Amino acid sequence: MADVTSRQASVPPSLPRIVIIGCGFGGLAAAHALKDTPALVTVVDKTNHHLFQPLLYQVATAALAPTDIATATRALLRNHRNTDVLMAEVTGIDPELERITFAHRRSLEYDYLIIATGAAYSFFGNDRFEQYVKVLKTVDDASAIRTHVLGSFEAAEQTMDPEILRRLLTFVIVGSGPTGVELAGAIAELTRTTLACDFRWIRPQDVHIILCESGDRLLAGFDPELSDYAGKALADLGVEIKLKTRVSDIDAATVSFGEERIPSLNVFWCAGTKASPAAQWLAVPAARNGAIQVLEDCSVPGHPNIFAIGDVASYQSTNGKPLPGLAAVAKQHGRYVGRLLDARITSSDPVARSFRYRDYGSLAVIGRSRAVAEIFGHKLKGRLAWVIWSLVHLMLLVDLRSRLSVYLNWTWSWLTYGRGARLLTGTEVKQAVPRFFAGIGSDRNRSRA
Amino acid sequence: MADVTSRQASVPPSLPRIVIIGCGFGGLAAAHALKDTPALVTVVDKTNHHLFQPLLYQVATAALAPTDIATATRALLRNHRNTDVLMAEVTGIDPELERITFAHRRSLEYDYLIIATGAAYSFFGNDRFEQYVKVLKTVDDASAIRTHVLGSFEAAEQTMDPEILRRLLTFVIVGSGPTGVELAGAIAELTRTTLACDFRWIRPQDVHIILCESGDRLLAGFDPELSDYAGKALADLGVEIKLKTRVSDIDAATVSFGEERIPSLNVFWCAGTKASPAAQWLAVPAARNGAIQVLEDCSVPGHPNIFAIGDVASYQSTNGKPLPGLAAVAKQHGRYVGRLLDARITSSDPVARSFRYRDYGSLAVIGRSRAVAEIFGHKLKGRLAWVIWSLVHLMLLVDLRSRLSVYLNWTWSWLTYGRGARLLTGTEVKQAVPRFFAGIGSDRNRSRA
Repeated sequence: MADVTSRQASVPPSLPRIVIIGCGFGGLAAAHALKDTPALVTVVDKTNHHLFQPLLYQVATAALAPTDIATATRALLRNHRNTDVLMAEVTGIDPELERITFAHRRSLEYDYLIIATGAAYSFFGNDRFEQYVKVLKTVDDASAIRTHVLGSFEAAEQTMDPEILRRLLTFVIVGSGPTGVELAGAIAELTRTTLACDFRWIRPQDVHIILCESGDRLLAGFDPELSDYAGKALADLGVEIKLKTRVSDIDAATVSFGEERIPSLNVFWCAGTKASPAAQWLAVPAARNGAIQVLEDCSVPGHPNIFAIGDVASYQSTNGKPLPGLAAVAKQHGRYVGRLLDARITSSDPVARSFRYRDYGSLAVIGRSRAVAEIFGHKLKGRLAWVIWSLVHLMLLVDLRSRLSVYLNWTWSWLTYGRGARLLTGTEVKQAVPRFFAGIGSDRNRSRA
Repeated sequence: MADVTSRQASVPPSLPRIVIIGCGFGGLAAAHALKDTPALVTVVDKTNHHLFQPLLYQVATAALAPTDIATATRALLRNHRNTDVLMAEVTGIDPELERITFAHRRSLEYDYLIIATGAAYSFFGNDRFEQYVKVLKTVDDASAIRTHVLGSFEAAEQTMDPEILRRLLTFVIVGSGPTGVELAGAIAELTRTTLACDFRWIRPQDVHIILCESGDRLLAGFDPELSDYAGKALADLGVEIKLKTRVSDIDAATVSFGEERIPSLNVFWCAGTKASPAAQWLAVPAARNGAIQVLEDCSVPGHPNIFAIGDVASYQSTNGKPLPGLAAVAKQHGRYVGRLLDARITSSDPVARSFRYRDYGSLAVIGRSRAVAEIFGHKLKGRLAWVIWSLVHLMLLVDLRSRLSVYLNWTWSWLTYGRGARLLTGTEVKQAVPRFFAGIGSDRNRSRA
């Protein structure tokens, strides 16, 4: 705390104020790049933690605990003497007054602004779907999916009614990007190993896992050969794959693909993205998904002191296509803009080169020993890709504690086929679980007696 | 799954049906004792997990994750071939029909019933307090306290209003049993180490931790010498101790001790216990705290096939006092009743001896390197007691995975003074945090610019 006084004394109020909104991969990388910049940096986020989203599906399927992959933002930025962390929800930006407004506190002024607010899932105009499906973006989302999966099994164990069973144990995953594929694979493994040992009455054939995709192959961002492999590996795990299939309707207990109606209480939505509403805040042109169309240096057209990075930015790469919504893009954006501002403020190298994205490759995991990877142009699949996937993700986790904890959990699951984080907790339990249990009249346990 | 068929075939329906309600320390011990009994055992619990409550205060103070100390009941009983697990909420028992009724499913019949439903906190007739305080019994309770502590700090960081600061950063713990003492100590350590490093504006003197106790000393279950030591150790950590002090009123932002009114949004209630309503279900005599007054063999008077164990039972020990509400009592009760039923069913030793409680001692921890212990009549305090406390708790955790995970987290915290589980998540955040942030007008971050 003595810190504060000395810091206040040593920091003249004339220092430029840099505000970073959002502390995902992009915002965190920008903050790191600004660590030694003579500026007052404020990192604003509506949560108190940085989340390692690539492993969120493992929280949703009870392999990891939320704390394994989420770390307090303050802890990550503890050693940044020039940086404040502010937990607050941004409601708007006034670029004329250079001021940010909030839900629960007074406004905050900036000299430079970095917008890194990310994206949400898009329902392609069918916003009514949202109330019936679960998405996978936040820790709470992951807990909700975990509750749905585990709660469905608990209820299914107690019923013999085939219609109710079908509704409870049909898991529909919409969208076959890496998240959809990884989630489908993880639910299949959870079903086949852990749950099969622990439940007495559910039969494997009672469980249906459906992965649907509007395009003509899985993992559209990967090479077609790897898409094929992923499809076969998922089919091996018992996942039914529906290609060229669009969801036409969803209600409380059914998902429809045109004429086909599938009863399910468990629809998980991993399709499409919609950028957060920063373009509206600034009233600047947006791409079709709502992302801000930024200039070469990630600045917002007409606002040279405002930058947008990561999923909230639409960045034209040299081949004319916008860069994909990947963690790697957000990180490189963040580092670039951080360094750019540092150079501008210290006048060390006022003309920074424009941003260039380095594509190191992409990875997706299907299950135990099965993954696909494209690394530096090489295509890999199977066990080697899985080992690389594991190592890369351990390495990318933000702190040593998370790495140790994830490593421990993975080793444990690998050895025992167990899942350590099978908790039904939170308000979701009170809301969703009674719905699962509704009508399970002719229960099995009783009939046994 | 092939299991089920063979099991069904091999288990004649004439086997006695034993139902255990509640899977805390007592219920789990009973289930373990019945592992090889020729009977149909059903373990009923309203949650899906067994919770290691002695470490729950560490979840509430962000040192451990919920999954470190809560394990899926099914996983624990996986190898019990004769046992089913049922997640369901019991609403009543009909001893005439030998039948249990539930909230969301049909009733279940039993031949033998073991009631192990535990206890809740008691407000000594002031049930209106409940809406304003947080208790510490379940995983959700611990998450709620964690949200309150971390959320208060986040809001306090953003205000300079001394009244709001006071309200946010005054933590009142009511009751000085082990839970109250441990919680007060852990909040003090969290404040002095982790949070002091991570917040820029909160000063240590802004934080007030008050532990109040209606009796004349802390830890009434321990030797007075150890109570003294605990009091001094807590005072060293900055905890203000109020003895002979009763809460007279609580509202949304104040706790009153007679004339003294203390503004606080954070009142944590660890006082008194009230047994779960099983005595009412059975319409049998209850002790003052609602516990069933059981006979020497833990059976319920008038119902020789119904047993009550642990906190829901009031058991007269040989010295005429009821046994305390400890995990050790529940475990020994459970094992005793399990063995009794096994003997009765197999007719191996029909006249079991009556229950005798073995008191191995008790432990309470105050903070880093500080604990008190009474073991086999020996009084211990300080570092040695703390080492014993740590080892005993690691040993008592129900599975190897929890042990490894807790060990990793403790070592990490010990080395870094860090707390790995500092997440603000769940609906509690949406409900409580806006209340914390209400009115934080003159914020510090802004005034700095």
